[in-house]
Amino acid sequence: MKILVLNCGSSSLKYKLYDMEDESVLADGKIERIGHENAQITHQSLDHSQIDKTTPIFEHTVAVVECLNLLVDPEYGVISDLNEITGVGHRVLHGGEYFKKSVLVTDSDLAYMDNKLKELGPLHMPANIMGIKACQDIMPQTPQVAVFDTAFHSTMPKRAYLYAIPYVLYERHRVRKYGFHGTSHKYIAGRVADLIGEDVTKLKIISCHLGNGASLAAIEGGISVDTSMGFTPLEGLMMGTRSGDIDPAALYYIMKKENIPMANINTMLNKHSGLYGIAGVGDMRDVQKGVNEKKPMHTLAYEMYEYRIRKFIGSYIAAMNGVDAIAFTAGIGENTPRLREIICDNLSFFGISIDKQLNQQRKKEFEISAPDSRVKVYVISTDEEVIIARDTLQLVANVHSQSN
Amino acid sequence: MKILVLNCGSSSLKYKLYDMEDESVLADGKIERIGHENAQITHQSLDHSQIDKTTPIFEHTVAVVECLNLLVDPEYGVISDLNEITGVGHRVLHGGEYFKKSVLVTDSDLAYMDNKLKELGPLHMPANIMGIKACQDIMPQTPQVAVFDTAFHSTMPKRAYLYAIPYVLYERHRVRKYGFHGTSHKYIAGRVADLIGEDVTKLKIISCHLGNGASLAAIEGGISVDTSMGFTPLEGLMMGTRSGDIDPAALYYIMKKENIPMANINTMLNKHSGLYGIAGVGDMRDVQKGVNEKKPMHTLAYEMYEYRIRKFIGSYIAAMNGVDAIAFTAGIGENTPRLREIICDNLSFFGISIDKQLNQQRKKEFEISAPDSRVKVYVISTDEEVIIARDTLQLVANVHSQSN
Repeated sequence: MKILVLNCGSSSLKYKLYDMEDESVLADGKIERIGHENAQITHQSLDHSQIDKTTPIFEHTVAVVECLNLLVDPEYGVISDLNEITGVGHRVLHGGEYFKKSVLVTDSDLAYMDNKLKELGPLHMPANIMGIKACQDIMPQTPQVAVFDTAFHSTMPKRAYLYAIPYVLYERHRVRKYGFHGTSHKYIAGRVADLIGEDVTKLKIISCHLGNGASLAAIEGGISVDTSMGFTPLEGLMMGTRSGDIDPAALYYIMKKENIPMANINTMLNKHSGLYGIAGVGDMRDVQKGVNEKKPMHTLAYEMYEYRIRKFIGSYIAAMNGVDAIAFTAGIGENTPRLREIICDNLSFFGISIDKQLNQQRKKEFEISAPDSRVKVYVISTDEEVIIARDTLQLVANVHSQSN
Repeated sequence: MKILVLNCGSSSLKYKLYDMEDESVLADGKIERIGHENAQITHQSLDHSQIDKTTPIFEHTVAVVECLNLLVDPEYGVISDLNEITGVGHRVLHGGEYFKKSVLVTDSDLAYMDNKLKELGPLHMPANIMGIKACQDIMPQTPQVAVFDTAFHSTMPKRAYLYAIPYVLYERHRVRKYGFHGTSHKYIAGRVADLIGEDVTKLKIISCHLGNGASLAAIEGGISVDTSMGFTPLEGLMMGTRSGDIDPAALYYIMKKENIPMANINTMLNKHSGLYGIAGVGDMRDVQKGVNEKKPMHTLAYEMYEYRIRKFIGSYIAAMNGVDAIAFTAGIGENTPRLREIICDNLSFFGISIDKQLNQQRKKEFEISAPDSRVKVYVISTDEEVIIARDTLQLVANVHSQSN
């Protein structure tokens, strides 16, 4: 069976077509700058034939059409008919408290996303929903599956997900910690268990997803018990352009001193803060370059970034009263050995020790802990798409078995 | 030499008169409900003669006069002349970045507090400043010393005190983490070192000040390297009525959904949140009572409170890459053995182990760690006033030695 995975961002669409026999990727691609005259399409198929083109694409529906056309294209395509696609899995940012796992999308599900969840993820949800609707229009017979970035964290206990604000705000508006990157953290936990050769239900794992957005998850017995992102993806760690945690009262002070509305503060915290706010560059590669050149603000940003990850690791060891393994993933987690080394060296009290040679490797997944380390440490390339494809396959297979 | 310690709150004044020969307290008292017809004065002297009276007191200057009159009162007083007071030490909430230690207050210091620091502590600073001015008026020959609640944390490294927001906000408005309860954390660190019998410069200590306000400090080599309160005393732990940490973006969402201005959000976070926000009672004794009666919201608030302290302890162990001792202090820290037990039991991974019998004691200071615990754990009754008295004595003695 072939499963298509779609990830519709606010101005982009990424896709992968899987043959679920062996989970091989038949084709993948992305369309960027949706909404512009010069949208950019990049598509490649299993045989590595590739096409790049620039074309005006003003809405997500058109982008979905472009993607599907490429999949059946005589030259660049990999299937001859869209009916070969058994199901489409959509990455959806926010499931709220309603969607605790992946679902075969019904009309009422879509209405719920539209009416209740869009405002929880105003940047991503409209695109996520548009992607699902476009596929429903174009391939009405094909089941659509929604896989939520929050779902893996729905197992958190109340003490971890509630804020210490008037409880009525939780009852009235569902203001609480949701957490994100759930699909990635779930994948990482599974891989760690495989690499250790132990059942995931017996392990305490800290997954460090360090990309442009960044979050840590405390995973105990295979389920998420805490995570650093919150009601939105702003909370927690310092990120590329996001502030992470800050004294909430400082915001009110800044509002008054700068005489700007809270909407601008919110934008500032999301777009102009983090590494960018300190170093003037939001990409860790640029920060690292500045560190190498001994630029003081780059070095400061780097130290703050490391320090905050380290403190969250400590807090999650306390949250679980233990840790068996720590895994680093995503762009920064996978590609910044120096950062991993500093973090782990600064956690030697916990019995964490890494092999500096092993830590220099670049491959899909590898262990970096030293033989005497009391905690296993891994670097694992995350793969959210394969989790989405698996969830989709499972839900679609259920439909098939029920209809037979 | 006799030193008077004054702590002027927004509607209260607390005082202690020390004989610094042996640091004995000659008299202490408090005046509450300043600004009201029925202000309440409670005063007691060394011989335990005590007086309570209710009288109209509409401003701090009058309260200071009442206090000084009682000290020289023929019946309830302990000195015959105000000139016996060698110096007055004032607790001052906020020293900003300017006051990194206690100072003999000059006119320019007072002007700086008035012009620059008042807005950083709008609830406390006006009263703190009024207290100093009142003493200057009434006893113009007596040196006034300011001891800042932030000063002990002025040693924090940049990576700990900076927020990951545009750096210009730090340059322009000094928005950063300051931390509070510094005098208490300093006292606790000193006592821990004495109890261990080791120089404080060789120790890693986590001081848990759990009162109505609550903060943790990571103290390495005798100096504060991190603390949970921030730009204001709102950040960090869950407190009696304060929220502590929350996703900053959640505030913007609540503003919009409830259609209330940020000023109200700020009040809500400070006055209607924390234990009160969840359990409907802000006093830990009431929460504990509800827990005993198995009330679900009280139990939830208690669990959240414990969980957040525990996570901060973990993060500070990571911050210092180690810990030699943990100390609990202030109202909740000293009087809630059950809370201490749960926290420590949940940190057994760190080699922390307490003796449940020792933990039930009620006295000024005692060890609760078990003999096999890798980390010492203490309960210590904090004494901010004696630190203020010592700082005052030292600065006043310098004046005397210079003038001799």
